[in-house]
Amino acid sequence: MNYEDFFAARLEDLHKGGNYRVFADLERVVGSFPKAKNYTADGSVQDVAIWCNNDYLGMGMHPQVLEAMKVALDSCGAGAGGTRNISGTNHYHVLLEQELASWHNKDAALLFTSGYVANMTALMTLGSKIPGLVMFSDELNHNSMIEGVRHSRAPKEIWKHNDYNDLHRRLSQYDRDTPKLVVFESVYSMDGDIAPLEKIIEVAEHHNAMTFLDEVHAVGMYGEYGSGVAERDGVRERVTILQATMGKAIGVIGGYVAASHNLIDFIRSYGAGFIFTTSLPPTIAAGALESVRYLREHNELRIRHQERAATLKARLQALNIPVLPSVSHIVPVHVGNAALCKQASDDLLNRHGVYVQPINYPTVPVGTERLRITPTPLHEDADMDHLCAAMGEIWDRLNLPRSITAAAAE
Amino acid sequence: MNYEDFFAARLEDLHKGGNYRVFADLERVVGSFPKAKNYTADGSVQDVAIWCNNDYLGMGMHPQVLEAMKVALDSCGAGAGGTRNISGTNHYHVLLEQELASWHNKDAALLFTSGYVANMTALMTLGSKIPGLVMFSDELNHNSMIEGVRHSRAPKEIWKHNDYNDLHRRLSQYDRDTPKLVVFESVYSMDGDIAPLEKIIEVAEHHNAMTFLDEVHAVGMYGEYGSGVAERDGVRERVTILQATMGKAIGVIGGYVAASHNLIDFIRSYGAGFIFTTSLPPTIAAGALESVRYLREHNELRIRHQERAATLKARLQALNIPVLPSVSHIVPVHVGNAALCKQASDDLLNRHGVYVQPINYPTVPVGTERLRITPTPLHEDADMDHLCAAMGEIWDRLNLPRSITAAAAE
Ligand SMILES: Cc1ncc(COP(=O)(O)O)c(C=O)c1O
Ligand SMILES: Cc1ncc(COP(=O)(O)O)c(C=O)c1O
Repeated sequence: MNYEDFFAARLEDLHKGGNYRVFADLERVVGSFPKAKNYTADGSVQDVAIWCNNDYLGMGMHPQVLEAMKVALDSCGAGAGGTRNISGTNHYHVLLEQELASWHNKDAALLFTSGYVANMTALMTLGSKIPGLVMFSDELNHNSMIEGVRHSRAPKEIWKHNDYNDLHRRLSQYDRDTPKLVVFESVYSMDGDIAPLEKIIEVAEHHNAMTFLDEVHAVGMYGEYGSGVAERDGVRERVTILQATMGKAIGVIGGYVAASHNLIDFIRSYGAGFIFTTSLPPTIAAGALESVRYLREHNELRIRHQERAATLKARLQALNIPVLPSVSHIVPVHVGNAALCKQASDDLLNRHGVYVQPINYPTVPVGTERLRITPTPLHEDADMDHLCAAMGEIWDRLNLPRSITAAAAE
Repeated sequence: MNYEDFFAARLEDLHKGGNYRVFADLERVVGSFPKAKNYTADGSVQDVAIWCNNDYLGMGMHPQVLEAMKVALDSCGAGAGGTRNISGTNHYHVLLEQELASWHNKDAALLFTSGYVANMTALMTLGSKIPGLVMFSDELNHNSMIEGVRHSRAPKEIWKHNDYNDLHRRLSQYDRDTPKLVVFESVYSMDGDIAPLEKIIEVAEHHNAMTFLDEVHAVGMYGEYGSGVAERDGVRERVTILQATMGKAIGVIGGYVAASHNLIDFIRSYGAGFIFTTSLPPTIAAGALESVRYLREHNELRIRHQERAATLKARLQALNIPVLPSVSHIVPVHVGNAALCKQASDDLLNRHGVYVQPINYPTVPVGTERLRITPTPLHEDADMDHLCAAMGEIWDRLNLPRSITAAAAE
């Protein structure tokens, strides 16, 4: 086999399908967000407005967070210097785990290098170490959960998205003593819909199943204290394992799970993806700690965030631009074609200095390609005027769809 | 099933076997390393000397690295704000990937959130996307490689540790056209031995197999420019895929692979663990970039590092303490029993203020438990006097083995 030819051919496939990805080379500018610098292929630097970042609340640019990180940098250095077990547990890790546990009203929490690794490792560990465990996974779960379920090699049932009746039917096939785990998200980030947590949990409890809830796109943003949709809906204590990231609304990087003492200690003790890796830098833990403390106390940030999202949805709809029916802070706009989606994104960037990345396969199914806009509390009315004018111009010029076609609505 | 009882029972297993892990809660103190603070269970804070960290060269405490991180914090903020594709590519990522590629004399490099994720993702992607690929994995490979090989579900052959004749025999079973990947490390971090790279590569080339080399415990430390054992041995260009971490000698966190343009672009385009996760904070990339630039130019740091390791080995041997036959910067000391190993470590900490974590199962096989000491260029002679006196006292008092028993030598 000629390896180079093989790789070149697979890349050619992507080019042909319009799915080859080019990353925008950006530099955010603290203090003037959403403005950022875009390093272009010809070597020049262009000013752009960022409209698609997942630092949903701008906490990654908050002066208190940056200050906390600098203090930790000066005292503890750049990295942790080891795995958690081998000299890599820093006092900031311990404090952050305590803070996260208390935020979610759980006994304990455990840090991972990312939300991806948190999902993979927790699901693989539970699925491979609990004899006979059956996994029940929502069909639209994130890749990190799919891989965790898959690689655990536990038997699995994929239930219809957010459909607790289908979940109930599938759980009913197993007797009460079979160990079971229901795996789902609260906010689904590509459509912006929110799972009916209480109903799903009720069904799981009825069948003596554990629940594993990914609140990656909800922590910091929902509930009076910002700990997520489970808090907002009053079901925190009924979720067996809560998982989230520190890379989105918390503004830094890293992931975690929160649960009972024994469950957390079990994953801490047996989870390969937790054990065999360098732990998060103390400065990262310090920044996340400061961010969570701030988020717990500042509900006005969440109120402003929801207002910004609602305003943008209304303004785009007024322009006859097809916003998907999101009930969250996410504003997905339907395009439905990979090449057009990329074209719209390129034109927004090059003609208007607006950066919204195209969302194509494999992130979303073919036919449901979209622009996914994420307004933050830092996006002012004037920024929105600029965005809406640009979107209107692009929709007219490229003759983009004015309604959501069947494929997308499926 | 009662889930809580199950978790409690599995934890009890660990307690019984002496394998339950307690993490030391530390705070490194920049400027006075190896001194650090140890937060004890009773709430007091103790001064300790760290002798087991993997920030092998102290770069995680280097003023230039810390300064570069602060500059990036001030300009770009705490986190990247997205996945690489969705607003999370920062200019520092681009610069760092270029620097790493040039360091290893490869076309291109690709960043991951950790060395663990780099191994998992690259191996899973190659193994699952190249039809018919067979993996040839050294039996002592790190957990991250084992999991990557396993979860790719590619057929595999496990060859005897560092035994290129066994590798040759196994490769010979397959015809030339079968795609093949030989997976191995340069420095094996628990024993401190180094693979015969040239021989292994020769065998692989003979059979038209690609090579995947983990230099996690070698980058920064071997070769005149510090890019690893492949540089030292003059075989960099013959390694197909080089993998490493930025969390050990580079002193920060993160992982990467370096290879040909097409191969890197293939993993960039198809690797789930690369695509579906928040990218490294710009400040982390900036720190790693500064660290690599420094390491390229400062061979004297490597010379001092090797001298420190050789001196410590000689001094321990003079005390009749059984150092495993390491040829690298790692100084593993044989104990051979989990409970005694933990006892020795506890006594070093509590009686002498010396922190060396016990290395027990599952990190090493049962019967080969050890203390693994990692002297850095920042450990002075006086620090070594203190360590050696403490080790001598503990070896006498606990009556620890004076030679390496059969189980350990296997
Ligand atoms: C639902 C969901 N879970 C987990 C993750 C992974 O989290 P992280 O970015 O911290 O790896 C993501 C996206 O990045 C996600 O969208
Ligand atoms: C050989 C080897 N490869 C990979 C890794 C993982 O690298 P990282 O700590 O960056 O996740 C480690 C240890 O941590 C290792 O020892």
